[in-house]
Amino acid sequence: MIAESLKSLYEDEWKKYVDHEFVSRMRRGDLPIENFKFYLIQDSLYVTEMIKAVIRSAELMPSDMAFQILSAVILGRDKGMETHAYLEKELGVEGNGRMTMTTYSYTRHLRYSSTVGWPQFLAAWIPCMWGYSEVGRSVSSSPNKYYRMWAEFYASKEYADRVSVILNAMDRFNGDITEIKDYFLISLKFEQRFWQAALEMESPI
Amino acid sequence: MIAESLKSLYEDEWKKYVDHEFVSRMRRGDLPIENFKFYLIQDSLYVTEMIKAVIRSAELMPSDMAFQILSAVILGRDKGMETHAYLEKELGVEGNGRMTMTTYSYTRHLRYSSTVGWPQFLAAWIPCMWGYSEVGRSVSSSPNKYYRMWAEFYASKEYADRVSVILNAMDRFNGDITEIKDYFLISLKFEQRFWQAALEMESPI
Repeated sequence: MIAESLKSLYEDEWKKYVDHEFVSRMRRGDLPIENFKFYLIQDSLYVTEMIKAVIRSAELMPSDMAFQILSAVILGRDKGMETHAYLEKELGVEGNGRMTMTTYSYTRHLRYSSTVGWPQFLAAWIPCMWGYSEVGRSVSSSPNKYYRMWAEFYASKEYADRVSVILNAMDRFNGDITEIKDYFLISLKFEQRFWQAALEMESPI
Repeated sequence: MIAESLKSLYEDEWKKYVDHEFVSRMRRGDLPIENFKFYLIQDSLYVTEMIKAVIRSAELMPSDMAFQILSAVILGRDKGMETHAYLEKELGVEGNGRMTMTTYSYTRHLRYSSTVGWPQFLAAWIPCMWGYSEVGRSVSSSPNKYYRMWAEFYASKEYADRVSVILNAMDRFNGDITEIKDYFLISLKFEQRFWQAALEMESPI
């Protein structure tokens, strides 16, 4: 599987992402709720841009792949939205935040990658989608009920099925891995910065 | 002039950019040459991407504006290339570096802005082009001959003429400044980070 090859190529960077201090603190339950709220706001700004990138890249995909990807992500995201909306309401998170430079830069990377080619976009997108399965499993036993609820969605079968669609699509790439590996690596670095920004409560732009 | 309005809107961020420590150390001549070489490599990677953004945004400009912008920048850049090539040869700078996350993020911002509309692109581009006139004037009296030579190009009439073309093009925007100001502000922040990355010799990706 191509995604596995990419992951083993950058194992250290992958670990720095999925085992980031933000994640281990969610798991232990000692992450201050303010940092989590900050994260939720930036994440929701991120997702809006990510979806634009998915749509743009779908234009470059074989039609059946475009249909699968769009179905899996755009139409199947109700459950995730529900969890997010519940948490936001429960925690009193305001809907309209402004991006940090980290969120802006990461999403510009996705928007750009989506114009290069579908293999480049999928490589850039996999760290987010696939990594959250791992993060979800690791946080789902948190003593904090909000972190647990958040994690259960990403640890769910429904989410895993969605990720499979993306990993399988990646396997249809028959070029050389050197054409896509930088997109994957850069997203791993941005994912680390995304957690870090939430720990440090980076100022919005 | 719209560029003046943008600048006065973000005067503090503008100052943090044009008066950055990297600039004042070039002016005083006590910037270590290794930092300058690092800067030259990242700058040349930046310029390649910037030109792609100019070309992409030219597609969205009125034809006469596209012609003026492309003429000023693409065809008129020989002198700047000459100075750069001379400095790189003189200082033994290798041609093929890899981008830092800072250079990558800034250029993704430019590439993205170039797809939104020409006013957004110009607003994102002006900090680089116009700011370097100011930086050039401030560094052109440096006791270090390399920094002086570098600065003299940006302080030149030829460079100022090129900047004027861009500032005048910006004045043809007749929308509301709120549609473009974020693009300008984000570039100011990236310019500050670009100097900072060169001071800290940020690791390439």
